[in-house]
Amino acid sequence: MESSSSTTGAIPMTGGDGRNSYANNSSLQRIVVDRSKSIIDEAIANYLDIQICPSSNTFRIADLGCSVGPNTFIAMKNIIEAIDLKYSKSGSSPEFHVFFNDHASNDFNTLFVSLPPEKPYFAAGVPGSFHTRLFPKRTLHIVHSTNSLHWLSQVPKEVTDINSPAYNKGRVHYTNARYEVFEAYSAQYAKDIEAFLHARAEEIVCRGLMLLTVSAIPDEAPTELGMGPLIDILGFCLMDMANMGMLEEAKVDSFNVPVYKTTPREMKKLVERNECFNIERIIDILPQENNLKEVSAQTYSDHTRAIMEGVIKLHFGCSDHTIDHLFQHLYPKKLEDSLANLLKSMGKSIVLFLILRRK
Amino acid sequence: MESSSSTTGAIPMTGGDGRNSYANNSSLQRIVVDRSKSIIDEAIANYLDIQICPSSNTFRIADLGCSVGPNTFIAMKNIIEAIDLKYSKSGSSPEFHVFFNDHASNDFNTLFVSLPPEKPYFAAGVPGSFHTRLFPKRTLHIVHSTNSLHWLSQVPKEVTDINSPAYNKGRVHYTNARYEVFEAYSAQYAKDIEAFLHARAEEIVCRGLMLLTVSAIPDEAPTELGMGPLIDILGFCLMDMANMGMLEEAKVDSFNVPVYKTTPREMKKLVERNECFNIERIIDILPQENNLKEVSAQTYSDHTRAIMEGVIKLHFGCSDHTIDHLFQHLYPKKLEDSLANLLKSMGKSIVLFLILRRK
Repeated sequence: MESSSSTTGAIPMTGGDGRNSYANNSSLQRIVVDRSKSIIDEAIANYLDIQICPSSNTFRIADLGCSVGPNTFIAMKNIIEAIDLKYSKSGSSPEFHVFFNDHASNDFNTLFVSLPPEKPYFAAGVPGSFHTRLFPKRTLHIVHSTNSLHWLSQVPKEVTDINSPAYNKGRVHYTNARYEVFEAYSAQYAKDIEAFLHARAEEIVCRGLMLLTVSAIPDEAPTELGMGPLIDILGFCLMDMANMGMLEEAKVDSFNVPVYKTTPREMKKLVERNECFNIERIIDILPQENNLKEVSAQTYSDHTRAIMEGVIKLHFGCSDHTIDHLFQHLYPKKLEDSLANLLKSMGKSIVLFLILRRK
Repeated sequence: MESSSSTTGAIPMTGGDGRNSYANNSSLQRIVVDRSKSIIDEAIANYLDIQICPSSNTFRIADLGCSVGPNTFIAMKNIIEAIDLKYSKSGSSPEFHVFFNDHASNDFNTLFVSLPPEKPYFAAGVPGSFHTRLFPKRTLHIVHSTNSLHWLSQVPKEVTDINSPAYNKGRVHYTNARYEVFEAYSAQYAKDIEAFLHARAEEIVCRGLMLLTVSAIPDEAPTELGMGPLIDILGFCLMDMANMGMLEEAKVDSFNVPVYKTTPREMKKLVERNECFNIERIIDILPQENNLKEVSAQTYSDHTRAIMEGVIKLHFGCSDHTIDHLFQHLYPKKLEDSLANLLKSMGKSIVLFLILRRK
């Protein structure tokens, strides 16, 4: 899962394999990867036309926003097993080339040393934003991306512009903020998805597939659903820290988390507007309610830390001690106080699985 | 440039961009990269058949043993400019996909963040030993490798076997050692080059090119020529440190540097034995004598440190302080004492540029 920041370009998940690393704090994403397996099997069984890659050629798969594993390895394994099954009926399989993509600042060193030793593919890492071109024309057969597209390429400019009606003082997200803030986020999302689809349309072969899981909220749901409250509470903690003199208040005002949850209807509209892909299926994997009951406030805090630590450190220039204080005391405590409501909101969020086919 | 160790697989050059990094201590390799430019131009002008890649397809180039730059970026730029020139006569150029390869433990993070922003190619990193398969079959059009093939995949087993006639007590290389030690190194080199050529023969398209610069010594030259004395003197320093109680003597006995300098005749024989490549040309780029006159003992020490620090730390489990003592005091001092002889020996070493074409 990739992340971004308006000021510096891209900030990766926490690297390495330590206690606070993304590798050890991505169990929530893992739920989605596991649930996706049966959908991947079905997508490939029903929609992959193996004529797009004769078995004497190379079958190319890209995982966009892969972070450092292990989820990306599990997803690639699932995809290749499903493809192999399909080719097995024709007698021989192609060789696989798998491209792991994330921002250049992602911890590729950790990714590379943890590649499964017996992997049935040749592996490559591709640094760069998936909102831009990453691959030569018509070279990819399947593009996969899980849990990454809700990251915006940047914080919408208006929300940090003191003269804009979308200026987002005292908050770090559009959740419970002014409507103009939400609009600015929504416009940025549309722009980013357009750039994403435009780039992929060039790179994917005719009739190639795109398998995307996208974090979302139901149509007509209030915009503050989903992980919004989780971010909103982080914002309150940062304001508390500003009030205690641990952070500058102006820095909190200029800090915004570039995450946006779309709806099925909005996503469908954006894909249709691009005109290069057929929507074969859009599946709601969840409501997640049942999975989340046993998740503790500290787990949520650890999870958020793995994703946000880099961005926060960079924006506030704060010490490890301050970060520890935030994620081991303030934040889990505030999460605990509103855990019931939080779970209710999180439980109403959905994950969309999109099966798109290049026209 | 990659390196290897028998005990752990692969140890990379020192990463990052600090004072002791490979990135800042690879000026000697840079000389070879610069000299190679005109030969690359000539090789591509004379031997690249652009029919192997229609301009609507992707032209794939791999740099094997790339380390962290900047030399690899310069080499890729040179190659692509030469190819573009050739295609320009036909009206349109293909898109380029460049694969940067080195061991998984190479500092790919540094490589990726330092990629030239305006590069005329799509970039990917490929982790793994080039003595094994790294790419799908028949996908590469040009393979390039500079200054890497003298690294063995492992220290020959016999030289650390106390019961073998090739046991190399008190030394860290075959330079000035028993003939059996040289023979063990030479056999390992033959095995490694065979594995290298076998893997590339699968990956390179028919009539694709391989452009290799290989550190070597002249035919009939004594085996201790080239960078051997540089390593030999490092060995004396390690023995001195053992005598001073700073390192274990047994550890010095079991430490050997997996580097071998071939000859033009030996290299030719190994390529012919593989039978998959035509030797279009073998060019002696140097004797290097004139380039080396102004290189100081400390520069040699820094250069060796960038390459060897990781291997030494791992083998001896020694502290940064010990490493500093070795490379800032003992080693440059001993190099200074024999600088004249050293330069003479280094100056007689050669660099071979091989232009091979897949049959």
